[in-house]
Amino acid sequence: MSQNDDAHLVWEDLQSEILIESPIFALRTVHRRSPDGRTAPFIALDAPQWVTVIPELQDGVAKEFLLVRQFRHGTGEVGLEFPAGVVDEGEDAATAAARELLEETGHVAESLVSIGAVSPNPAFMTNTTHTFLAKGLKKIADLNLDENELLDVQQMGFEQLSQEIGQGPFASAITVQAWYFYLSHSGLLK
Amino acid sequence: MSQNDDAHLVWEDLQSEILIESPIFALRTVHRRSPDGRTAPFIALDAPQWVTVIPELQDGVAKEFLLVRQFRHGTGEVGLEFPAGVVDEGEDAATAAARELLEETGHVAESLVSIGAVSPNPAFMTNTTHTFLAKGLKKIADLNLDENELLDVQQMGFEQLSQEIGQGPFASAITVQAWYFYLSHSGLLK
Repeated sequence: MSQNDDAHLVWEDLQSEILIESPIFALRTVHRRSPDGRTAPFIALDAPQWVTVIPELQDGVAKEFLLVRQFRHGTGEVGLEFPAGVVDEGEDAATAAARELLEETGHVAESLVSIGAVSPNPAFMTNTTHTFLAKGLKKIADLNLDENELLDVQQMGFEQLSQEIGQGPFASAITVQAWYFYLSHSGLLK
Repeated sequence: MSQNDDAHLVWEDLQSEILIESPIFALRTVHRRSPDGRTAPFIALDAPQWVTVIPELQDGVAKEFLLVRQFRHGTGEVGLEFPAGVVDEGEDAATAAARELLEETGHVAESLVSIGAVSPNPAFMTNTTHTFLAKGLKKIADLNLDENELLDVQQMGFEQLSQEIGQGPFASAITVQAWYFYLSHSGLLK
């Protein structure tokens, strides 16, 4: 569908005001005008780009994955996720992915490939979350965590991961969408 | 892994203050203490539960899906997603899913099954996003949109959807994770 066909859906930007800035994002009101002339304020949350890395270890035919287990301050519970983080200012997404992989697992990758990039939530998030597949992993260092980061690395085989993802502590939408991109990229969808 | 094994990861709640309340969520600072005695403030975003509905139309062997095409105020672009919305106060997730399906597409479903429930982002979101699969669809009404909602319904076949999901306007993490649950539930993963 061409952009032209969408003209009746597109709201025009009027003014925007920052409501509050936090260390991880800024909350903004955006006033917009609809094609049929209504005006209204909407909420937008400006965050840096995010990256998720799927670290795949190949041991013969068996595939294993590195996961991080940590307390999450949104849910208030311990969660199991793929390594992930924010892209620093001036950094590109691939560099951030390699950095987060090293910091959170102590591993470097021979191959780091972008396999997906989507909006975390188009309704109010302005950023993009990138997914990378890391292969040819080598452990070269101990973990190097951010201040106030506390995590365990956990290794899990393909079968167990396929069973457990999306449930219990392993239930993050960002990790699940990253796994979809892994399955699609790896030819594992029927 | 038992909860006991996670004791070295669990931060304890101290106090919490609301920073700002918007129509769609509240932003809160939570002060927490780590198992090794550090204290720090973290950001939590309290939102209502969310629902996404995958409306599957079966025409003989061919599967078709209903999507909504609308301007999104986070990305500032027109996006293509499964019908979705927030669970109203006092409502349960299944009721909200049926309501959103009716409001955004005019359809009712004979069968509405919960196929997944995850945190949108455990790092800062406190809510859960639920995915439902709707079958046995019947169009009974015109769209009944919220104030300031403006959308087109678009029908797409399984093959095209499989090709296009995760790309271009069809790139929402919430829609992609919902599609993972659909593929898993429908036996479409290898």
